[in-house]
Amino acid sequence: MTDSSKPDGGIGLVETKLFIFGEKEPLRLASGQTLGPVTLAYETYGVLNKAGTNALLILHALTGDAHAAGYHAQEPKPGWWDVLVGPGRAFDTDKYFIVCSNVIGGCRGSTGPGSINPATGRPYGLSFPVITVADMTEAQRHLMDHLGIGQWLAVIGGSMGGMQALQWAASYPERVRSVIPIATTLKHSPQQIAFDEVGRQAIMSDPAWRGGDYYDHGRPERGLALARMIGHITYMSDQSMEEKFSRRLKTEGYKFTFDAEFEVEGYLHHRGASFVRRFDANSYLYVTRAIDYFDLSGGKLIKAGAPLPRFMVVSFKSDWLYPSYQSREIVATLRTHHADVTYVEVNSTYGHDAFLVEHEEQSRLFRHFLAKTSDGKEGVS
Amino acid sequence: MTDSSKPDGGIGLVETKLFIFGEKEPLRLASGQTLGPVTLAYETYGVLNKAGTNALLILHALTGDAHAAGYHAQEPKPGWWDVLVGPGRAFDTDKYFIVCSNVIGGCRGSTGPGSINPATGRPYGLSFPVITVADMTEAQRHLMDHLGIGQWLAVIGGSMGGMQALQWAASYPERVRSVIPIATTLKHSPQQIAFDEVGRQAIMSDPAWRGGDYYDHGRPERGLALARMIGHITYMSDQSMEEKFSRRLKTEGYKFTFDAEFEVEGYLHHRGASFVRRFDANSYLYVTRAIDYFDLSGGKLIKAGAPLPRFMVVSFKSDWLYPSYQSREIVATLRTHHADVTYVEVNSTYGHDAFLVEHEEQSRLFRHFLAKTSDGKEGVS
Repeated sequence: MTDSSKPDGGIGLVETKLFIFGEKEPLRLASGQTLGPVTLAYETYGVLNKAGTNALLILHALTGDAHAAGYHAQEPKPGWWDVLVGPGRAFDTDKYFIVCSNVIGGCRGSTGPGSINPATGRPYGLSFPVITVADMTEAQRHLMDHLGIGQWLAVIGGSMGGMQALQWAASYPERVRSVIPIATTLKHSPQQIAFDEVGRQAIMSDPAWRGGDYYDHGRPERGLALARMIGHITYMSDQSMEEKFSRRLKTEGYKFTFDAEFEVEGYLHHRGASFVRRFDANSYLYVTRAIDYFDLSGGKLIKAGAPLPRFMVVSFKSDWLYPSYQSREIVATLRTHHADVTYVEVNSTYGHDAFLVEHEEQSRLFRHFLAKTSDGKEGVS
Repeated sequence: MTDSSKPDGGIGLVETKLFIFGEKEPLRLASGQTLGPVTLAYETYGVLNKAGTNALLILHALTGDAHAAGYHAQEPKPGWWDVLVGPGRAFDTDKYFIVCSNVIGGCRGSTGPGSINPATGRPYGLSFPVITVADMTEAQRHLMDHLGIGQWLAVIGGSMGGMQALQWAASYPERVRSVIPIATTLKHSPQQIAFDEVGRQAIMSDPAWRGGDYYDHGRPERGLALARMIGHITYMSDQSMEEKFSRRLKTEGYKFTFDAEFEVEGYLHHRGASFVRRFDANSYLYVTRAIDYFDLSGGKLIKAGAPLPRFMVVSFKSDWLYPSYQSREIVATLRTHHADVTYVEVNSTYGHDAFLVEHEEQSRLFRHFLAKTSDGKEGVS
């Protein structure tokens, strides 16, 4: 591709922007601690209309980032949901003003444990406060005000992004016209907590982790890679692994070693190794802790008397990490409050990863839901 | 309990015995390497009848041992399947001569990587040859000859024990009258290999592992504990974890730390810590490699023209590590060969652990199957 063209009909070159706030008044966190100043990385695509009624907020999963669509200069791959965001696409940049926001606690441009603590001049490390999903959305609410948006037409996200979407509905129902939580849950189950905990233990068991104070030293790459390998198993399904790898060997015949002889082993090693190049081990601790704490069950999702956003809840049949029954729990809770809710279980074999790869079905669903929600009144002009 | 009584109607005090062979002619392994001398740990309960027709072979899972039933002196807990083995129990010691054999490669009395290599006078470590499930059963066949048993009335095992049971049918169909493979598979799937591989990586990433040469130093306890924690998640079901832990905290309120705050985290830590006291990290590598290599698919289970044992295949509904579809594949393969096969899917919520805890249903099944198989002719006298 050339640098400024739109070779694939997409939005072409984009840049991640940084919003800085909390310099005078720091962000007050669920833990009671404060954080400031705060940098929040985000991208925008399309144009906000005069009435301010065409804004969509896209929220990413555990280790994602603000780069949902288009291309960054010098990078061959587009954003992580590019196929859904662009002119004429489901999240149509000719119609909507689309914001994709990163999360605090992470390491993809926003303030997190790897950021410099202004009080010490050194990286926070484990002195960074433990944050929650509500803290993430609170930071995004500051961004929303900064961008001059009164109400999101829709807040959309998969996995941890879906938790943020639900949190928006819980914290600011009057500022959210509709919500699309995908492959997510009202609360982390003990199994989900358990998988996160073994990932954290993989990191914290790496001597290079040094209690989180490794930024002047070598990073805990083996521990982080192992955490990612564990995660990857849970993102795929038994069936998708069978289809992708079966029992194929990297070279013919058993070698009778403990090297990666099976293709599936090689794949996990590869995914682990790529991950450590783009993600910070401490951030992995913080974002997994945030989702483990996430719990909007027991009446916390809907405030009595508050306006009720419209919902479309989406799950995937082979997703065993965030199984469909958890989405049905969200739906049941919403129906108790007589919310306008559509539920779709997509028949996919891709497991939890389906929300990142099942484009056609999701395009159709999102396009239809947004059209119904916006009543055609949300043009750009 | 007092030392020699049978306080619970069980078999009372027992001892693990050691069978040593391969001093002159070493065991030839699937890899082409040889191993000798070989020690195999086993226990026996009951008495072999004169015709030698009442012998049962019980085979344990990944990290189990030969101590299936009764009590060891000074130990408060009975063997791992005690509730099924004893006078009047499903594996009735008044009727049957029961052998429970350990596996080579392990660390519970049999020759494994922690044993002394006679050639060097030092522990084998990673110079121990990689072994397969077929090598395990080949060692057991030597034990069978040593005990003077011509044919097993039944070979029974869950998980890796089930793989050994299937391997017996494949390697020595004429010496096996019936087989009960429980919660197992004809071949390890890529997902099963993947979970084993992250466990191995947890061990091999621990600097204390030292390439397997740690016996004169501290053991790789953190890595082994982590491997066990990962394993434990796969042994339980989403539902059994919810029932056992839900989102309960160890102490009231979130602490906003990375300590084990949830009960499920504390449980995993506890299980990891207990495991390192009884199991060797290198053995964990060897036994997981053996089951990853296990593959009796594609016509390898039944030899053309060989006698066909009777089968009862048992799976558990909530077992997602060895899902029922894998047991149904065993059944389908057997039916292709017109084998006499009974299949039972037990409706349990305990996940893979069910084969160790669903006693009542299994008692009923095993009792009935053995009665049918033995035709009442297998008395002790």
